[in-house]
Amino acid sequence: MKTFDKDISEDNSSTEQQTTSIGNYLLDRLKALGVEHIFGLPGDYVLRFDKLIEEHSIQFINTTREDTAGYAADAYARVKGVGAACITYGVGINIVNATAQAYVESSPIVVISGTASKKEFLKSPLLHHMINKSHSLLRDTTQLEIFKQITVDQTILDNPETAAENIDRVLKACISHHKPVYIEIPKDIVDLPLIPGSYQAEYIKKSNPEALKEALEEIRKLLNQSSKPLLWIGRDVKVYHQTDHLLAFAEKYQIPIASTLLGKTIISEWHPLFVGLYQGAMSKPEVHAFVEECDCILSLGIILSDVNTGFFSDRLEEVPHVVGSPDKIRIGQHEYPDVLFYDILEGIGDLVLNKEYSCQIPPKAPFNEFIPTDAILTTERVFECIQTHLTPEHVIISDVGDCLFASSGLVLEKDSYIASAYFAALGSGVPEAIGMQIADPKRRAFAIVGDGGFQMSAMELSTAVRYGLDPIIIVLNNHGYGTERPILEGKYNDIVNWNYFEIPKVLDSGIGIRVFTEQEFQESLLKAVADRENFYIIDVELGKTDFSPALRRFFEYLKKMQEA
Amino acid sequence: MKTFDKDISEDNSSTEQQTTSIGNYLLDRLKALGVEHIFGLPGDYVLRFDKLIEEHSIQFINTTREDTAGYAADAYARVKGVGAACITYGVGINIVNATAQAYVESSPIVVISGTASKKEFLKSPLLHHMINKSHSLLRDTTQLEIFKQITVDQTILDNPETAAENIDRVLKACISHHKPVYIEIPKDIVDLPLIPGSYQAEYIKKSNPEALKEALEEIRKLLNQSSKPLLWIGRDVKVYHQTDHLLAFAEKYQIPIASTLLGKTIISEWHPLFVGLYQGAMSKPEVHAFVEECDCILSLGIILSDVNTGFFSDRLEEVPHVVGSPDKIRIGQHEYPDVLFYDILEGIGDLVLNKEYSCQIPPKAPFNEFIPTDAILTTERVFECIQTHLTPEHVIISDVGDCLFASSGLVLEKDSYIASAYFAALGSGVPEAIGMQIADPKRRAFAIVGDGGFQMSAMELSTAVRYGLDPIIIVLNNHGYGTERPILEGKYNDIVNWNYFEIPKVLDSGIGIRVFTEQEFQESLLKAVADRENFYIIDVELGKTDFSPALRRFFEYLKKMQEA
Repeated sequence: MKTFDKDISEDNSSTEQQTTSIGNYLLDRLKALGVEHIFGLPGDYVLRFDKLIEEHSIQFINTTREDTAGYAADAYARVKGVGAACITYGVGINIVNATAQAYVESSPIVVISGTASKKEFLKSPLLHHMINKSHSLLRDTTQLEIFKQITVDQTILDNPETAAENIDRVLKACISHHKPVYIEIPKDIVDLPLIPGSYQAEYIKKSNPEALKEALEEIRKLLNQSSKPLLWIGRDVKVYHQTDHLLAFAEKYQIPIASTLLGKTIISEWHPLFVGLYQGAMSKPEVHAFVEECDCILSLGIILSDVNTGFFSDRLEEVPHVVGSPDKIRIGQHEYPDVLFYDILEGIGDLVLNKEYSCQIPPKAPFNEFIPTDAILTTERVFECIQTHLTPEHVIISDVGDCLFASSGLVLEKDSYIASAYFAALGSGVPEAIGMQIADPKRRAFAIVGDGGFQMSAMELSTAVRYGLDPIIIVLNNHGYGTERPILEGKYNDIVNWNYFEIPKVLDSGIGIRVFTEQEFQESLLKAVADRENFYIIDVELGKTDFSPALRRFFEYLKKMQEA
Repeated sequence: MKTFDKDISEDNSSTEQQTTSIGNYLLDRLKALGVEHIFGLPGDYVLRFDKLIEEHSIQFINTTREDTAGYAADAYARVKGVGAACITYGVGINIVNATAQAYVESSPIVVISGTASKKEFLKSPLLHHMINKSHSLLRDTTQLEIFKQITVDQTILDNPETAAENIDRVLKACISHHKPVYIEIPKDIVDLPLIPGSYQAEYIKKSNPEALKEALEEIRKLLNQSSKPLLWIGRDVKVYHQTDHLLAFAEKYQIPIASTLLGKTIISEWHPLFVGLYQGAMSKPEVHAFVEECDCILSLGIILSDVNTGFFSDRLEEVPHVVGSPDKIRIGQHEYPDVLFYDILEGIGDLVLNKEYSCQIPPKAPFNEFIPTDAILTTERVFECIQTHLTPEHVIISDVGDCLFASSGLVLEKDSYIASAYFAALGSGVPEAIGMQIADPKRRAFAIVGDGGFQMSAMELSTAVRYGLDPIIIVLNNHGYGTERPILEGKYNDIVNWNYFEIPKVLDSGIGIRVFTEQEFQESLLKAVADRENFYIIDVELGKTDFSPALRRFFEYLKKMQEA
């Protein structure tokens, strides 16, 4: 098995460790993993650690709130492999939303919290920001208990003798499981000298070679018997660094590839073998028709969640199939408990088949020049227009709502799409745009958000001002929680209409434009895309019940299900 | 023992229960407790319950985010006795901050979350918004586990046969403990017919009469021996509805009364017996000097937290003293485990003493007319000016930062101050102003916030627009996290300066004013106070290190402690 992660235990060459502090050791370990920025905001229990960051080569990125710090760190991790956010105790726990999102969508972020010193707590536990539900006599462990629910490992660095070892263990868990971890650092521990640890990574589980061989042989036979197979690959293939290997395999035998919303753009969507996003009944008709004719499906790295599978309307169970995920390897109705996901991905990529396939991949839409009229905009036309303005520098960031359904149809380059398509957290779009641009300043966030989501986090554009970032924000303003209206309409689905285009006046920066017609939208995009000196908010006025074709398909499917 | 709470179990006269639904039963019970508004925002798992609210006499109040819904419900509970907020599953968990605040500060709020149906979950647990950390086979219990950490009771209404009983039990816990509870309601349960419950409140603990008698006799002797006693009363005296009784007792024997920041305005601060806020070394000098001469202190309903006690610099332990709180009754060095807080409050109020005291209460500052100059504003002068504009209709809402220290010095009418003075959650000010005005539309929120806190939740003013509320928001704009600068300065304490006064342009409502001088501030307040048609944002430009006298006292105290 190849090393597929930067291994923290490999980088312990430095003998300077003995003279560093515990706080600096944590920062050095994060840096070694690729963390160059930590998102967060200060607070008295974490100030000393914040100061260490300021003095370190890692940069502290101030956000306006903790939840947005979490979303930014999540997007950063999706781009750079690992992210980090830093909060103060108690009042910073609203970072839980973003942490839960990173947990379910496999985005490895390190959540660091400052806390009171043991001495302070022993004098009296009734300290500001403390919750004290857990009634520990030594410190408030309430926050730890909360983060246990949404992280794969946790530590409170309250013992200098074990701090190094605990840091190593927790960071190792983060990069091995590709999921969030939680580190709490008391303010009096930050500057204590490090006592080098002797953390040994626990026995790393390996596949049983016989089981692996049997599984791969089964898969080889399935593919050889198939005349129209499909590789249905998702985000975890990228997370486990096997995209290129599988793509080369597909190219060698001309196997068509589909993805999911959560895995969108793990390969270029312009690739001749790329079929489209397959999400069961929610797929584009031509993709749905194509998959209906496949006679073997390899589902690899796909979270078989409701949104990813078109609410469980996919065809997987109807044909010979393989499911490979970090949790399980299944072929047809039997499982291989002793085969690991990484090994099966690598093994499939190495398979030798007895034929090349020849499939008619549905043509990508032509995306000719967008000819704007003076008609009032529709969501469908908005996306037709966006498609023609995208360049390889753009990364589409989608918030939740019709923006997610509609943006699924854009045809994009590799690694050009970020969305919380499983956890589906409203308001994640703007802070994720910030996190993406901090992670990769050469690219530009092209964020598409609904008005409901934008109201949750619009002002995080303050951070774009602070660090000179220039995201383009498209606000699909349909005056409410549009995706809920067809489910159950009520006044609660309406929201106050803001003059979103006036936000630059508050921030004293950026350009705001409100558009009603196709012509206006075209002009606004021409201006925004050409200008890398400013962020843009383009307030796109839409009808309350104007939906994208993808969302209409979804509602039609829902209706059919209810009638069935 | 008198009934000091609306007792839910008393109000079960209705025989209509048998025809109501589980969702409506929950709403009816909330209404019976005094809940007339529920704060929140919709989401697909909770839409059906939202619709029930819309059809009920309880009003749904849309906020823009869940955390702000929580703060609004908390303020609402502080005014009306109980509050409620309603979220959807998973992505609504960032209400945790506000829930933790309500937990530590004894504000009874009911957090209601929608969730998926059991049928959906059994088909596949990989549903959007689900976290599934807990690996329950029947439903995702991750959110329940998180809320166990910050609430006194919880239930998932997944069994129609026990739903009524569980609702009764959990609401009873909320009003008995004066702390938050958590109710999760699956979307398929909302409309099921109610099966009436037979919840019997558990045995309610009563004081041991002998112990109560002994304790009260001890307190009577302490008071009779004292020549200069002090009643130091805090928020829990109000929470347990004993303020008037204790005040009558104090008036009868002319005992001076002090309070704390968290208990500020539980009696009128203009009352002749009111000494001021006593917070140890952080107190105003005249209050500190007065308490230094007291020879007996009854600390009742005070959370002896760091901020409330001037970081544990109070004089309590130096003189004969009584500590009465919901957790314990202590006289000197011994405790009365079998005496309840409510009973001791009531008993003290009934004590017959052998004398009247005569104490020289420090005079309230005269607060003559504020004579503005054209000088640049200082925090000290801002509050001198504010003091002269306050009327009994105003409720001061303080966010966290110097606004909290500075506002502590205002002399206010009874029930005219709300602040998260213990948990100290930045950004709570604006949503609490909203919650207060919804709870008591006749009064007007006069919110004082720092720029850091305002950036967290400024846009919740959207909700003021929606419901026609007219809070006055004073932004103490000192260009950063001012209270942190003297602790440890760094770039992380700076924030982007917004044109806060331009926010009305975004919301298309309200009046924004930026002021630099005393004259300008005076004029802006004259205008704002006279106008009940608009909300106001007054952006008060201050120096980066201009602090209130109270904050300066705090830093001087901190410095002295560090040098000691």
